[in-house]
Amino acid sequence: MRGFGMIAVDQVGWLDHPRPQCGPLDAIVRPTMVAPCTSDIRVSHGWAGQRGDIILGHEAIGVVDEVGPLVTSFKPGDLVAVPCVTPDWLSAGVQHARQISHDTGEQASYKFASSKDGVMAQFFHVNQADANLARIPDDVSPEAALMAVDMMPTALRGVEVAEVGFGETVVVIGIGPVGLLAVAGAVLRGAGRVIAVGTRRASQSVALQYGASEVISYRDGRLSDLILACTGDLGANKAIVAGGDAATLAEAVRLVRPGGIVSNINFFGETEVLQLPISDWGLGMADIDIRGSFCPGGGQMVTSMMELIRNGRIDPTLIISHRLSGWDALPQAFELMDIKPPDLIKPVVVV
Amino acid sequence: MRGFGMIAVDQVGWLDHPRPQCGPLDAIVRPTMVAPCTSDIRVSHGWAGQRGDIILGHEAIGVVDEVGPLVTSFKPGDLVAVPCVTPDWLSAGVQHARQISHDTGEQASYKFASSKDGVMAQFFHVNQADANLARIPDDVSPEAALMAVDMMPTALRGVEVAEVGFGETVVVIGIGPVGLLAVAGAVLRGAGRVIAVGTRRASQSVALQYGASEVISYRDGRLSDLILACTGDLGANKAIVAGGDAATLAEAVRLVRPGGIVSNINFFGETEVLQLPISDWGLGMADIDIRGSFCPGGGQMVTSMMELIRNGRIDPTLIISHRLSGWDALPQAFELMDIKPPDLIKPVVVV
Amino acid sequence: MRGFGMIAVDQVGWLDHPRPQCGPLDAIVRPTMVAPCTSDIRVSHGWAGQRGDIILGHEAIGVVDEVGPLVTSFKPGDLVAVPCVTPDWLSAGVQHARQISHDTGEQASYKFASSKDGVMAQFFHVNQADANLARIPDDVSPEAALMAVDMMPTALRGVEVAEVGFGETVVVIGIGPVGLLAVAGAVLRGAGRVIAVGTRRASQSVALQYGASEVISYRDGRLSDLILACTGDLGANKAIVAGGDAATLAEAVRLVRPGGIVSNINFFGETEVLQLPISDWGLGMADIDIRGSFCPGGGQMVTSMMELIRNGRIDPTLIISHRLSGWDALPQAFELMDIKPPDLIKPVVVV
Amino acid sequence: MRGFGMIAVDQVGWLDHPRPQCGPLDAIVRPTMVAPCTSDIRVSHGWAGQRGDIILGHEAIGVVDEVGPLVTSFKPGDLVAVPCVTPDWLSAGVQHARQISHDTGEQASYKFASSKDGVMAQFFHVNQADANLARIPDDVSPEAALMAVDMMPTALRGVEVAEVGFGETVVVIGIGPVGLLAVAGAVLRGAGRVIAVGTRRASQSVALQYGASEVISYRDGRLSDLILACTGDLGANKAIVAGGDAATLAEAVRLVRPGGIVSNINFFGETEVLQLPISDWGLGMADIDIRGSFCPGGGQMVTSMMELIRNGRIDPTLIISHRLSGWDALPQAFELMDIKPPDLIKPVVVV
Repeated sequence: MRGFGMIAVDQVGWLDHPRPQCGPLDAIVRPTMVAPCTSDIRVSHGWAGQRGDIILGHEAIGVVDEVGPLVTSFKPGDLVAVPCVTPDWLSAGVQHARQISHDTGEQASYKFASSKDGVMAQFFHVNQADANLARIPDDVSPEAALMAVDMMPTALRGVEVAEVGFGETVVVIGIGPVGLLAVAGAVLRGAGRVIAVGTRRASQSVALQYGASEVISYRDGRLSDLILACTGDLGANKAIVAGGDAATLAEAVRLVRPGGIVSNINFFGETEVLQLPISDWGLGMADIDIRGSFCPGGGQMVTSMMELIRNGRIDPTLIISHRLSGWDALPQAFELMDIKPPDLIKPVVVV
Repeated sequence: MRGFGMIAVDQVGWLDHPRPQCGPLDAIVRPTMVAPCTSDIRVSHGWAGQRGDIILGHEAIGVVDEVGPLVTSFKPGDLVAVPCVTPDWLSAGVQHARQISHDTGEQASYKFASSKDGVMAQFFHVNQADANLARIPDDVSPEAALMAVDMMPTALRGVEVAEVGFGETVVVIGIGPVGLLAVAGAVLRGAGRVIAVGTRRASQSVALQYGASEVISYRDGRLSDLILACTGDLGANKAIVAGGDAATLAEAVRLVRPGGIVSNINFFGETEVLQLPISDWGLGMADIDIRGSFCPGGGQMVTSMMELIRNGRIDPTLIISHRLSGWDALPQAFELMDIKPPDLIKPVVVV
Repeated sequence: MRGFGMIAVDQVGWLDHPRPQCGPLDAIVRPTMVAPCTSDIRVSHGWAGQRGDIILGHEAIGVVDEVGPLVTSFKPGDLVAVPCVTPDWLSAGVQHARQISHDTGEQASYKFASSKDGVMAQFFHVNQADANLARIPDDVSPEAALMAVDMMPTALRGVEVAEVGFGETVVVIGIGPVGLLAVAGAVLRGAGRVIAVGTRRASQSVALQYGASEVISYRDGRLSDLILACTGDLGANKAIVAGGDAATLAEAVRLVRPGGIVSNINFFGETEVLQLPISDWGLGMADIDIRGSFCPGGGQMVTSMMELIRNGRIDPTLIISHRLSGWDALPQAFELMDIKPPDLIKPVVVV
Repeated sequence: MRGFGMIAVDQVGWLDHPRPQCGPLDAIVRPTMVAPCTSDIRVSHGWAGQRGDIILGHEAIGVVDEVGPLVTSFKPGDLVAVPCVTPDWLSAGVQHARQISHDTGEQASYKFASSKDGVMAQFFHVNQADANLARIPDDVSPEAALMAVDMMPTALRGVEVAEVGFGETVVVIGIGPVGLLAVAGAVLRGAGRVIAVGTRRASQSVALQYGASEVISYRDGRLSDLILACTGDLGANKAIVAGGDAATLAEAVRLVRPGGIVSNINFFGETEVLQLPISDWGLGMADIDIRGSFCPGGGQMVTSMMELIRNGRIDPTLIISHRLSGWDALPQAFELMDIKPPDLIKPVVVV
């Protein structure tokens, strides 16, 4: 079976792996559309350590090809969206609401291209299909459904963790695909003023379409100073960090007011160190929370995202900037994500 | 000083009261626009017991006419929106987040036309002005600001208490002015499918403009049966009750699924009795909450509402169906609310 | 296989059923100690409708006798506590934190003596053993472990749902075994004054041992009047309902103050009707919640309970008033629960 | 008027200040018992910057000496406990539940020895007396009441912010007076295993009396390694930081498991910098929150603490190690806190 993956750090290409085996609770899915994600790129460059010979990709929709004998809700031929996080629902970890992404350990519910091959292959494996697949309704387009498996739930998780309240001022830092949907999500959660932070024109335009009150650029000055200046020195109520590095996170802490929440959904490199002056964190006594979360998992979560799409609450396809077709276009899509041309936000590949 | 009020049960008219006195922390406000509320009408018909000789009205914006010597943030001439709920912020009750509307007793933070004269007068009194007034920004219209003092916060409080989650199915029962804004609020909080329940054409049209997925009528059958039928027998996630009587509330309990929340923001008569078959409440063991809340209070709350308006998140003026002008139009506005012609949603009166 | 159960309404006795079959994810457990529960009695009297030929019981600890081929964490011979609620963790329902007790429908995660035979048999079946069993540590006695499968988690769930805060005044209505543990739980959650309501001497004594500030009796007057009188007319912050009928629930609503929560963990009959004067519920506008919950499920929950026991936070065996031995004592234990002699709180049977 | 205070950095002594003036909403209190706090010491050494000529102290009980004309609930002669945090309840900041300690800015509700003279004087000023005083009931001892104004509420706030759940494993780092009460608070909130971290014998003994499951010392090895080792490499559920420096905080983040919460109630120096390897924070994606809070304020909060004391839930006087008497003993008490002899936990001074 052919799959696109990581041969070694800084080296991607085609791999030939055996078709995965279907356990009694599991499904084998044949993808019909996939999308590379920035985290695929980063992993390929060694952000998550030395790895190799692993098929990449964790964003896919597709057709069920095979199900195990204990699967009751899905059958071959079903069109499904597959969450990028597929917990082992029988593990101890998921019995705590805050932890379903960490079934048997940190981020362990995230299995694609991590503890097993990813989705950029002719077939891929889904554990516990009944709990981890979501049927795609007729009124949700394939592209929209694909955005519901990682981009939307990660972004909306960031909004939930930020506990955005009606009328609040929210800063979204980083307006790549997840950040843009976090802008949409903050608006959809009842934020008042939403300040999007990013420099790329294509993204700025979509941010405004998603309801950003204004867009500012990193280039305009020190971010926290900019936000303090434009909020009468009060600071924002909440900050959602969807880009940058550990220094960006420290800026986010500095720009919220007492009682504020910084919600991180960014992917940092394993060797980064947060350097946070305690005085920028209100001396640790200002009721400012620094929270870091992860895409939630499971089929119901994807279904919830599709409910938003079906009812016209959000159109996640606005972030799709490039549409490619065919397996052979995968390396190109991957390279696009890597070199990030100015007009790129998110590519998808029909396979 | 002239004021429009309740002379006795079922009798409204003009009263001549002395101009209210301004305490050291207080303000006297001269209203520029007021709106009668269904609860004014109900009070005038004795729903809250025998009363008389009291000026009615609790929805107003206006100009500060006088402030007490301890007031620091407002001065005569300021254009302000006045929350219908003005807590005594020095009382014990407000030190509990769930209770700011109940400062020294049940609904005691609600003072207009209750423990003192209301706002439909040449001047009215606001306790603790620094905490209970909100300056109207230039980019918020008087009509919109007026909707921010009771209609919007009551509706959005209903949404908050319902803990509406991303993608959930929410039923809003009753689409008078508050119910309509609850539809808008549920959408603004991230609901998926929103089912509005009401029969009046004018309201149905606004419900759809505010994002209702569909509108059903009480006349189509038993409400809970209708909802169960259209949700594959699952029931809704949440129900917001903004109309009807105690029997409506019981229907709301029956139509939500396990884990559901019924959020009441309706005003019942003092003698109503909820008759709820325990089996319709999941035998009291289905994690279904029955919650009843009240408009929150204070200037900051009104400011939050106006932040939503300024940033284009919600246009509360869609519910204004009738615009009248002059003090002499007040009785007519009041009568409109009482007889409720088919095209009426909410009248406002420029005074 | 021999089991004690319900032959028909009002008729219990020995049944001869085949040993249950073990599915691939499941376990068969041989009980070593069981306890009848008031709900077994009520079911036997038809509270949950016409039933028959079903083995009763849902409180047991025991030894694993057989596991399915997909079970990884348990093996025959393991000493385990079995939660009375054993969700299907692969169902949609459990992916919502508020609903794990309602996997595929109302209370559907509660399977023993409901959708399958109960635990009062030589062997019983546990679905999804990895998720639904809990190993008993050496430092937890069998009796204590047995109290951790239903009595403790039901009681503590009532406390959690009541959102008991530090220093609050909490009324626990009904001091049968669950109510007594709710007293202990309220104390363990940081309540200040805890008022236990019940008439039986044996229970009153244990309530005081568990930290009740005082005990009052239904016989002393109308319950809500008593509480209002002893709280300076304020009412309690929270009420936990662990006994009585629908009228008791209405009293609970009347005795809490604005912002209060009534948390029901009582088991009502299917035909009861709550009759609640709206004025006793603060006109539905006093931020008083009426919540009804159910024992949560899963092995981790039982493990949490045993962590409390191991660390000396609570001794649930204080509620055990009668200790019997042998299968032949089961009918006697059952009858004890039915006739409730004055000194009875909770019987256990070593089998 | 005589008062003990900070003359300059590193220099404390007696000051002669005029008796404070009583505003219309305020009170003047004559202290009867005061306690120096570690933060007084730190401030005196310049942790909060260059200051001078300010009376220190923020922990006091006393007798009301004078009230302003608008005060309704207190009168001269009343015995009161005074919260160390006394918000301006008419400010915008307090209208957000997470922010009552930050009325007009970061920690601005904390006024004693910060924006005005502290309590270690013949008389001290309390703003908004009706909201910021608490009458001491007959059944609460003066010493216990004194512990209810800062030590208890700070500690219990740390527990609340940590969202301690039933049966969880909680690490309390630092067992000075606040840390010890955090141990008691974690137990009182339903923690299972509570691991106290500290080296001083006197404190270790009180930690065990308050229910710590075990006590470990910083000297036994790297703290996070110790906790990981004794929790089967899982880590703790929650960590409460009540001592150490920014490096300690980083350790706390490393020792909690996914889903964990680190709750800081420690007072850091203004120039400290948190250096946190992102990998120790689960790469910012492990649902680990880093929260920092502050003593809540207001009279009701103190009353809640005293409700715990009255009902025997906690005895805060166990932390009092030294009892001194007379104004002249104040410098000695202050010096005790500064040099910290081995048997010192918390001194109090009857004045």
